[in-house]
Amino acid sequence: MARLENIRIDEGGVSCTIIDQTRLPRELVHRTLSTPEEFFDAIATLAVRGAPCIGKTAAFAMSCFARQAALEGCSLEETRDRLYDQADYLQSSRPTAVNLAYELDCAREICGQPAQDAWQLAQHLCDYAHHIEDNEEIIYGSIARFGLSLLNPGATILTHCNAGPLGCGWPGTALGPAILGAAEGKPIKVYADETRPLLQGARLTTFELSQAGVDVTLICDNMVAAVMAQGKIDAVMVGADRIAANGDTANKIGTFGVAVLANHFDVPFYVLAPKSTIDIACATGEDIPIEERSGDEIKTMWYEQPMAPEEVRCYNPAFDVTDAKLISAIITEDGVAYPPFEDSLRKVVCS
Amino acid sequence: MARLENIRIDEGGVSCTIIDQTRLPRELVHRTLSTPEEFFDAIATLAVRGAPCIGKTAAFAMSCFARQAALEGCSLEETRDRLYDQADYLQSSRPTAVNLAYELDCAREICGQPAQDAWQLAQHLCDYAHHIEDNEEIIYGSIARFGLSLLNPGATILTHCNAGPLGCGWPGTALGPAILGAAEGKPIKVYADETRPLLQGARLTTFELSQAGVDVTLICDNMVAAVMAQGKIDAVMVGADRIAANGDTANKIGTFGVAVLANHFDVPFYVLAPKSTIDIACATGEDIPIEERSGDEIKTMWYEQPMAPEEVRCYNPAFDVTDAKLISAIITEDGVAYPPFEDSLRKVVCS
Repeated sequence: MARLENIRIDEGGVSCTIIDQTRLPRELVHRTLSTPEEFFDAIATLAVRGAPCIGKTAAFAMSCFARQAALEGCSLEETRDRLYDQADYLQSSRPTAVNLAYELDCAREICGQPAQDAWQLAQHLCDYAHHIEDNEEIIYGSIARFGLSLLNPGATILTHCNAGPLGCGWPGTALGPAILGAAEGKPIKVYADETRPLLQGARLTTFELSQAGVDVTLICDNMVAAVMAQGKIDAVMVGADRIAANGDTANKIGTFGVAVLANHFDVPFYVLAPKSTIDIACATGEDIPIEERSGDEIKTMWYEQPMAPEEVRCYNPAFDVTDAKLISAIITEDGVAYPPFEDSLRKVVCS
Repeated sequence: MARLENIRIDEGGVSCTIIDQTRLPRELVHRTLSTPEEFFDAIATLAVRGAPCIGKTAAFAMSCFARQAALEGCSLEETRDRLYDQADYLQSSRPTAVNLAYELDCAREICGQPAQDAWQLAQHLCDYAHHIEDNEEIIYGSIARFGLSLLNPGATILTHCNAGPLGCGWPGTALGPAILGAAEGKPIKVYADETRPLLQGARLTTFELSQAGVDVTLICDNMVAAVMAQGKIDAVMVGADRIAANGDTANKIGTFGVAVLANHFDVPFYVLAPKSTIDIACATGEDIPIEERSGDEIKTMWYEQPMAPEEVRCYNPAFDVTDAKLISAIITEDGVAYPPFEDSLRKVVCS
């Protein structure tokens, strides 16, 4: 089966084409992005999503913006000023994902390096974008390989939200071991939480796994305790949006609850993420800002009719922070990091 | 504000009018039920729901069926035979709720008692139906009073699914303390889990609480760990569909997970239910049958479009069983029962 390309830079280098992930699994819709507002909107509305994919989108956007400036005849200084502003603007689209900040910092650094003119700066940013793309398969292939090594043949895992090829690169982070296992004839079964309110588990995870030939069962988020109590789950595998220096992990809302349940039922709980997700400057989870989103996502989005009275207030945090104490190991492209994470993660980041 | 009447026997005594709870909160739709198939369907599709309300519906149905038989000129024996068959049929509509079995057993017992003719048997069943109705306010008022006594003024509770006036009698079981508190000027705040897949929390709990003037905030089921970690929750209050002799409690899917989280965050976890919910013949939760429902409830129900690919399998248990070890107290109309529940529940049932 053809691998889905979550984002690519179009010919000419001034726009990108994305798969609009909000339309899956019903329709495979591509969208073209070229203005800062269009990129901002695609990130904020989750048309592109998944921490690594958001970072990549930001890097691709910066490459497009630079070429646009060069085409408009901007000077090197004008181009730099515009790019710094555009980077700040994009960074405000989603506060929790560290990959967004990470890739925008890389872009800022490239902007600050010597260049002859706007064209050369644009070329540097374009080279960096291609470098991300080239690295992807190495990084995610490696994470999947290390993840798979932690599972017994025929194991069943539970995952929350979506950390597959669409949100990362092939074969994804949390979904990587199951997808790699299917490709290599070592099948791993998966229970996928639907992941309210945006249903990334129902819409994207089951879609990706099913396309990859993985045996997947969809459950509601509140069924995790029931399936764990029945002994159906051998391990939990989730992605991450930001990992603090002590191992505390911000990921999609609900991950923390799954970790508490895994702990209660003695099920290993694994976080899989590229090492760019580790924010060593962030001492603990308390330093991670948590994005709060509109209550309309809970009450009205996707539904034929509103599912709660209009006057009722909602609380809709998009992420939660899983206590490092509940995490059995953190898997990056460099290998498996075990507690105490203060030591093991520092080694990963410094390697 | 007028109290909503979840079910009533119509004039003439051969049919009932219910509020179709699947249509709330969008529309207040009443439906008339008279045939066994209509009652079965209303229970199976959750048009009437909430363990006590299901029991009451079954009792009301038996009263209607007896009067129908009498009107058709059936003999006492013919009426009895028909009623036994109809009771068996209704009992198969939802296997987990003990109240359904309990009220049908009462109806069977009344059928077996001496009567002059079908008319007199019908009168006995009708008297019993009115007796349930008369008792309701005493039972639920009492549960609410005991529940409220466990909360500090201004406390915030979390609830799962819907155990309010619609599913019980006024003011409900789990929602009783908050509704009684609002009526008496002792406000209790509530976080309501939306309760996938049927969204009884979003659709019914927020509706009932908001109508009763209670400060309610709607969250997704997977946000419980986040709100508990923030110290927002002083106690959990839930209803029950069946309580085993050792205190293990079957309730809406997701309740078990909330109990594990409450235990992790040191939040008291209370079960509120009429004592008819206690099934002393059921030694532990392992003896409670768990209803499994269609995956369409997860993938397509309520939505504009299917939210997962058609070929994806779902697992959709309607209930789970909360380990008695995780329950701080069980509140019935007789008072507050504390662990060890083997002793305290036996006292309640035998009183």
